[in-house]
Amino acid sequence: MIARTLDGAALARQIREQLQPQVQAFTTQAGRPPGLALVLVGDDPASHVYVGSKKTQGTDVGFRVDLHQRPATTSLDEVLALVRGLNADPAIDGILVQSPLPAAMGSDAARRVFETIDPAKDVDGFTAENVGRLVQNREGLVACTPAGIIELLEQDGVTIAGKRAVVIGRSDIVGKPMSLLLLHRHATVTIAHSKTPDLPAVAREADILVAAIGRAGFVTPAFVKPGATVVDVGMNRVSEEADVVGFFGEGSKRHLAWQQRGSVLMGDVHPAVADVAGALTPVPGGVGPLTIAMLMKNTLTAASRRVR
Amino acid sequence: MIARTLDGAALARQIREQLQPQVQAFTTQAGRPPGLALVLVGDDPASHVYVGSKKTQGTDVGFRVDLHQRPATTSLDEVLALVRGLNADPAIDGILVQSPLPAAMGSDAARRVFETIDPAKDVDGFTAENVGRLVQNREGLVACTPAGIIELLEQDGVTIAGKRAVVIGRSDIVGKPMSLLLLHRHATVTIAHSKTPDLPAVAREADILVAAIGRAGFVTPAFVKPGATVVDVGMNRVSEEADVVGFFGEGSKRHLAWQQRGSVLMGDVHPAVADVAGALTPVPGGVGPLTIAMLMKNTLTAASRRVR
Repeated sequence: MIARTLDGAALARQIREQLQPQVQAFTTQAGRPPGLALVLVGDDPASHVYVGSKKTQGTDVGFRVDLHQRPATTSLDEVLALVRGLNADPAIDGILVQSPLPAAMGSDAARRVFETIDPAKDVDGFTAENVGRLVQNREGLVACTPAGIIELLEQDGVTIAGKRAVVIGRSDIVGKPMSLLLLHRHATVTIAHSKTPDLPAVAREADILVAAIGRAGFVTPAFVKPGATVVDVGMNRVSEEADVVGFFGEGSKRHLAWQQRGSVLMGDVHPAVADVAGALTPVPGGVGPLTIAMLMKNTLTAASRRVR
Repeated sequence: MIARTLDGAALARQIREQLQPQVQAFTTQAGRPPGLALVLVGDDPASHVYVGSKKTQGTDVGFRVDLHQRPATTSLDEVLALVRGLNADPAIDGILVQSPLPAAMGSDAARRVFETIDPAKDVDGFTAENVGRLVQNREGLVACTPAGIIELLEQDGVTIAGKRAVVIGRSDIVGKPMSLLLLHRHATVTIAHSKTPDLPAVAREADILVAAIGRAGFVTPAFVKPGATVVDVGMNRVSEEADVVGFFGEGSKRHLAWQQRGSVLMGDVHPAVADVAGALTPVPGGVGPLTIAMLMKNTLTAASRRVR
């Protein structure tokens, strides 16, 4: 068996295409486009890449996108003041503060910044108010990565109701909201993690297995019930040639990529899982592109609720 | 094997005894006792009993307890105005609105009332803000029943970390917060429910099984791994003599009680589970008394945070 590919990149394109006319309709009706504010503090190179993609894609679907760049020396109070200003700005519907914030701001900085965002503009779904609404299955804004995974499963026709789902990883931004979204769609949900004994046996109970651990190739075929749907949320950089060859084989595409760039990206799921799973999200091109597409969708949703 | 009894009533007494000197210390320091406002709308007899217990126990531990009784004809707006007044009252630290509200107020009334309570005074832990904080494992106020169950497990020395926990039932006030509390204590948690196929097999995976379904005697020995800890959250009224005899036997204490009162109370767990489980909460006298004790604890916690 070779697992069917769940093509997140294609679905992300489709979502953006569906958004464009809706954004146009909003703009006509409201007399202004949906407004997305991106806040980027410091000079983390990956963050600059992510924020750049968000700006480009937001502009492409028809949003007004304001990028607020601040140096790494910015104080937490300055960031909080910026967020409060965006909360009060009627032309802004969504506020995203890119993580990580500079370490000098303190370990609690991200939490304090997120909690300052108006829940109605919290397009990342990180505020306690939106997380609580998710638990209660009420209208709110849901974290983009798990929301995108649900879209991908539903578009592919994967049955969720009555199935067993296992989520490996219990982070606030993926594992826990993912579990709740699956639960509300009537899966029997197990949340497993680093303290779970015999993790492969627990994972093998899953009809739908979501891997969000952050360890390259951690989920081997021993974790996968034959025919299961496997969603790979990981995005790990592998630099050792021996690891790349071990995972992908001598002379494989990834090995050649490693020879050119000195590292490759891969998910939490071992490539050999493709021989066991029924369906599988690739990395890259699976969950990643959906996260940004869902950010766009959340921004339009927030805008529509604010003017209704 | 006869399961060890997890004596919730005894622990509830102990918690109240521990609270008394803390309440005295608070009162001395703050110049006023912790203040608990109970709002009771309409004439549901069970609600009157519950609220009466809360008032008596609150007064006994040293709180100021204000009971706000309103007739069933009260409008939703009047209840919301009452709650806003209590939010603004500096002498009130905890606000509890007893469920159910009169049906005439509409199906969304309870949610609207709960969301109006200041999260800092939300001693039931029902607001989205407090639920979100629970998900994020941050300081907040946690729903009383699941919080009490954790106290009971910990006091009895039941190991949670690394164990498999299965919660049957996915309500906002028991199942979901219970799952999160167990997860944060490093259990591998499965949430099962009415749409779970082969529920007994899923339940048998549990080292810790929490039954919160609301169906008398639903959890039979077939649901229980030998030696598991079983927590019974159910409180069901059984009126048919045949059912009482079926569950408890001809001439049993409950059968005699039925003959006197025409009904008996029992949990979601079948009495025969005592022969399989390692430890078991009785009904009544298990989880129930802990719920009110945790309400007292939450009120003191809220009061202490408000003056710090």
